[in-house]
Amino acid sequence: MKASATISFDRLLQKEGIGQDANEKPQSLEEGVRTTNSHSCDEDTLAVLSLRNLLFDICNQNGGGHGGSAIGMAAIGVALWKYIMRYNPSNPEWFDRDRFVLSNGHAAMFLYAINYLVGYDAWTLEELKGYASPKPSGFKTMAYGHPEREFPGIEVTTGPLGQGIANAVGFAMASKQLAAQYNRPGYDVVKARIYCMTGDGCLMEGVALEAISLAGTLKLDNLVLIYDNNQVTCDGPLEWINTEDINAKMRASSWDVIDVPDGNYDVQAIVSALNHASNLRGKPIMINIRTTIGVDTKSAGTAKAHHGSIDTESIQLSKIRAGQEPSSTHSVPGRVLAFFRERKAYGERLETNWKTLIQKYETMHPDIGTAFRNRRAGIDPSACLQVLSNMSAYEFDGKATRESNGAILSKIWELHPGFFAGGADLVTSNKVSYTPSDVYHPSVSYSGRFVRYGIREHAMAGVANGLAAYNDGTFLPITATFFMFYLYAAPSVRMGALSKLPVIHIATHDSFAEGQNGPTHQPVELDSLYRAMPNFTYIRPCDGEEVIGAWQVALANRDGPTMLSLGRDSVGHIPATDRYKVILGAYIIQDVPRPKLILISCGTNLHYTVSAATHMSAAGTPTRVVSAPCLRLFDAQSQEYRDSVLPRDGTPVVSIEEYVATTWARYTTASIGMTGFGYSAAKESSYERFGLNTDGIIKRLTAYLGDLKGANARTMGWRQL
Amino acid sequence: MKASATISFDRLLQKEGIGQDANEKPQSLEEGVRTTNSHSCDEDTLAVLSLRNLLFDICNQNGGGHGGSAIGMAAIGVALWKYIMRYNPSNPEWFDRDRFVLSNGHAAMFLYAINYLVGYDAWTLEELKGYASPKPSGFKTMAYGHPEREFPGIEVTTGPLGQGIANAVGFAMASKQLAAQYNRPGYDVVKARIYCMTGDGCLMEGVALEAISLAGTLKLDNLVLIYDNNQVTCDGPLEWINTEDINAKMRASSWDVIDVPDGNYDVQAIVSALNHASNLRGKPIMINIRTTIGVDTKSAGTAKAHHGSIDTESIQLSKIRAGQEPSSTHSVPGRVLAFFRERKAYGERLETNWKTLIQKYETMHPDIGTAFRNRRAGIDPSACLQVLSNMSAYEFDGKATRESNGAILSKIWELHPGFFAGGADLVTSNKVSYTPSDVYHPSVSYSGRFVRYGIREHAMAGVANGLAAYNDGTFLPITATFFMFYLYAAPSVRMGALSKLPVIHIATHDSFAEGQNGPTHQPVELDSLYRAMPNFTYIRPCDGEEVIGAWQVALANRDGPTMLSLGRDSVGHIPATDRYKVILGAYIIQDVPRPKLILISCGTNLHYTVSAATHMSAAGTPTRVVSAPCLRLFDAQSQEYRDSVLPRDGTPVVSIEEYVATTWARYTTASIGMTGFGYSAAKESSYERFGLNTDGIIKRLTAYLGDLKGANARTMGWRQL
Repeated sequence: MKASATISFDRLLQKEGIGQDANEKPQSLEEGVRTTNSHSCDEDTLAVLSLRNLLFDICNQNGGGHGGSAIGMAAIGVALWKYIMRYNPSNPEWFDRDRFVLSNGHAAMFLYAINYLVGYDAWTLEELKGYASPKPSGFKTMAYGHPEREFPGIEVTTGPLGQGIANAVGFAMASKQLAAQYNRPGYDVVKARIYCMTGDGCLMEGVALEAISLAGTLKLDNLVLIYDNNQVTCDGPLEWINTEDINAKMRASSWDVIDVPDGNYDVQAIVSALNHASNLRGKPIMINIRTTIGVDTKSAGTAKAHHGSIDTESIQLSKIRAGQEPSSTHSVPGRVLAFFRERKAYGERLETNWKTLIQKYETMHPDIGTAFRNRRAGIDPSACLQVLSNMSAYEFDGKATRESNGAILSKIWELHPGFFAGGADLVTSNKVSYTPSDVYHPSVSYSGRFVRYGIREHAMAGVANGLAAYNDGTFLPITATFFMFYLYAAPSVRMGALSKLPVIHIATHDSFAEGQNGPTHQPVELDSLYRAMPNFTYIRPCDGEEVIGAWQVALANRDGPTMLSLGRDSVGHIPATDRYKVILGAYIIQDVPRPKLILISCGTNLHYTVSAATHMSAAGTPTRVVSAPCLRLFDAQSQEYRDSVLPRDGTPVVSIEEYVATTWARYTTASIGMTGFGYSAAKESSYERFGLNTDGIIKRLTAYLGDLKGANARTMGWRQL
Repeated sequence: MKASATISFDRLLQKEGIGQDANEKPQSLEEGVRTTNSHSCDEDTLAVLSLRNLLFDICNQNGGGHGGSAIGMAAIGVALWKYIMRYNPSNPEWFDRDRFVLSNGHAAMFLYAINYLVGYDAWTLEELKGYASPKPSGFKTMAYGHPEREFPGIEVTTGPLGQGIANAVGFAMASKQLAAQYNRPGYDVVKARIYCMTGDGCLMEGVALEAISLAGTLKLDNLVLIYDNNQVTCDGPLEWINTEDINAKMRASSWDVIDVPDGNYDVQAIVSALNHASNLRGKPIMINIRTTIGVDTKSAGTAKAHHGSIDTESIQLSKIRAGQEPSSTHSVPGRVLAFFRERKAYGERLETNWKTLIQKYETMHPDIGTAFRNRRAGIDPSACLQVLSNMSAYEFDGKATRESNGAILSKIWELHPGFFAGGADLVTSNKVSYTPSDVYHPSVSYSGRFVRYGIREHAMAGVANGLAAYNDGTFLPITATFFMFYLYAAPSVRMGALSKLPVIHIATHDSFAEGQNGPTHQPVELDSLYRAMPNFTYIRPCDGEEVIGAWQVALANRDGPTMLSLGRDSVGHIPATDRYKVILGAYIIQDVPRPKLILISCGTNLHYTVSAATHMSAAGTPTRVVSAPCLRLFDAQSQEYRDSVLPRDGTPVVSIEEYVATTWARYTTASIGMTGFGYSAAKESSYERFGLNTDGIIKRLTAYLGDLKGANARTMGWRQL
């Protein structure tokens, strides 16, 4: 790689006069179109150098950061933002912009610097200077260590490798769905293409490999994966850890591949590859671009360039080459700034033209025009909420919550055009039904709203994040698999929570009673993760009535993911459950005048709990039962309400759930739960084995009350029963 | 696929007389060798049919289970167990046996039935009848819904798709490492080969794709992946969800591929493919075998065959064909049983021959012979424990725990030949150092003990499980990455806990102070998962002294994984920490005569906690400080000890940790922790921002004590401060 860096360097030195006129008045540059060939290489190269020089300064301003890849990708940046992508810096949210995903999110400064150069108002030089600042005493910045989607010009939060590729697949699916649904002859109101940058690292992550396989299967030809092929990772050369033939692998995965041998300087070669990609049909495209990490610095081509500061000599040389003062920092030659900034006016014009098109389209196709307008504005769930309010839970009596859930989803499916559901090859068991015409597939139609994700739980959740991030409220993605397999999907689910993306995860088979698969499928500890995850709403309803309430909550939650945790097996009837109280998180469903014992539970376990409580009351211990479908929502209630449900007067409060009782301890004086893994047996057998059936609960409660001897339960400390 | 099933059926009908002589006295079958060609196809076919008939009965005995794949793989089973694999049913633990992994673990009955047929004593017909039994009142079985490694003839627990492929890669690495280290010319004391069965599902899972890429890079030519290519998954035909060219993809991943067009009946074609695979060098091998799910039943070739019972007519026809009574169940013709059971004597002879070889080897190579014997017996960690006892923690003063950890591992590395470490491309940051000659790589040597896993966290943990499962105590695998990225690895880590595999996971960057990467890298909720996971020991030491103690615990823990949760940034010195008290889980490090406040913490947070406690004591609130590196170990102590550390007398007990405080609530009256995601800033800035520095802690404690007004803190209920 050292050799390759040197070659680029030599080539560069042969170009005379670069940057000599950097202090001249900016020339009037023609506005670009995709196939612009009017700019000389010198201008391109000057832009590349200037971007790199800015990145050098960002690297060194606070002694570190991930500069090497960003520096190596500068020519790719110029190609994309100057010649290829359709976007409007004056309106980062323009609906039909092309989407760019930086899957190698550690190269964040690349995106920040370009956003500044092309004129996103929020991305000032001052913001760039915040990168890697220690930020004492609350100093704020948008220039995080990794890009976060809350800021303009950043489509998705990335950093954990591989996620961005799955998000980009979601974007591509979204764009194709909208195009199939709303475009009409002469009115291509949706033509956004998706560009995703990846390094060597993302391409090794399972989530990316799953997403790549899915994208090939779905023939997403609006997706371009740009491989910054620098053959170096954090710990050393790529050959240490990966010897595969990536081009052959991608082709085998039904992708087209285009090679670009020099990605360090040859902007127009990159542009022509990207243009060619736009003309290919029927497959997603990978452009394999050879670059040098930390190009033209002393650590070029080595792992040392991956992060850390850059040697001063190389920086100074590079600045001289670009006609800049070698000691200047954070300055961009006026000519170069103009070269990039003309994109702002160009982007404004793009959006204006699109708006004009939309006006004509709405005149020509008023119904679909209105539908599209609504879709862009974000889906109002009120029609669904109305149906949920009016729905009779009677028909769900005794049914498994997975079945109630499936029936409910069927009833609201047509009322919300943004629903975009799919499962990881278990939807028959998840009871998420769909019609053949619903299927989103090249052999059916891209206007479908049900995607078969295959056995790719992780990519499914990452794709769902992309769908949700496409435009606020345009899609409401729904995923489905067994609860246990949301552990496979967890890194993407977490990114959804961090990014405040409203995705609904349907997690069935959430108990022992999962059909005898055994402990590999019994999620005794997974709730601990999801109940602890910030900005994540985990709801475990006990019956059809509460599943309705869970959907009300999920549809109203626009700021993060919701998981519906559902059972496989049928459950009994609990008359007092109330859909409108799910939002409270926990509420009393069975009470007595002066309770001597309070039981709190949810899901399947609540049914055994109610039965045990009835017995306890009859046997002389007046017992209250609390249904607690969502602890996060309960935490959000007033202290007064919480005290009314779970008084802190020393009454024993016992939670009952077939999981390890971590989260419950903050509310209870004792918990009945699991302390080990499960067992492969039928429902009744497992509940009996682990003392979680009615008899087992009664036995443990009785022993506990005996130990307490009427003492204040709180003073005795929390107990695992 | 329907068509293909029919073709097989027709072919079969052309074979006259099959099973006509099933009641004859079993013939004396020659003992097999790998290239046995002496058996007629008729005998093979009869074996295939008989195995299938047994599987039909297992499917239908309790109305369900996953039969379709098992039925379709019968010929593969005959090929492997009759003609190819080296194993000894009389000693399932024979060291040099070939290993078989059923990655498509839902086909468990396949393995159970074959284990019965070839004569594993534990696998009786009665055991097979336990499959899918409801097991009321504690009825026990080994025939779980998915295979579990605690039972004879089962190498690893599988079920969650993809895991088995990663385990098999670990097996292959283990076998190659031992061969490279211990084999001598003329003494191939290790030649175990690895056979891994996969369906369509595993090959879509990210963990498998990562492991496949790693196996190709490492050129593991002792690994054979047998693809049960039936083109059907749970929800439908494979083409719905995957269109990739799997052979081309595997070849691009540096694998060899062999095709077998008829895997339903052509046993000898499978045998010859497997034999050919044994002769290939330099690459792992995939054998792509076309089969029909639920072959020769009415649901053959469809998703309906994936699970559920089998139609009676097909079963009866199949039994007639095999010369069995159509109404008989769970019976295997004597001739067929003899056909399989001769493998028992053959296996005994294989092991006897191997033992003879070992005797000669130990005579010829006494030193290496002893070393190999010790290795087989499992590594005694006492030499390491001795060094850990004598180690001075002085040199670690003020160092980050990741650095102390790296130094400690270096000091014990040579004392434990079973250490087999590796990281996911962050080992420079993890501070896990290695020498170039340590590297396990085809270009260096397979006798190395450090593997560069690449950016494949999930596969890394799955491979580590395989290494640990190879033979108890022969390997002690160590993995390393950032704590946050153990979320990617979590499904495999969980399988290690479920399977009781002693793997040590080194999880660095476990706090805000992770170098400004920001919330994508800050693990605020991940501890909740790992602290709730059964049979998993999560230890978060606060300084070098406790890291030594953590290693003592980890080396002594032979029944499950241990995670060392370590910090990136340097920490101060706490004189009272004690390596020998880490085993207690929690212990007092700073005390006062009659504490009015007890603080409990661990890791980086303990340093701020000690500082805050000193202030509180000085300001008039006598404060005790408890170091709690491992809550699981604390739970295992006597109530008396736990009360001595955390009395239940109403004294406020406050935990302080930069995570969401789920697990702490069972011990405390209040917690200082996180309720949201982190922020991209330097250490000091983040601790200040979230009120977790000394000042922030003091402020919150003071407010809490003010609210309590001297009341019994327990009666007030738990609080998030």
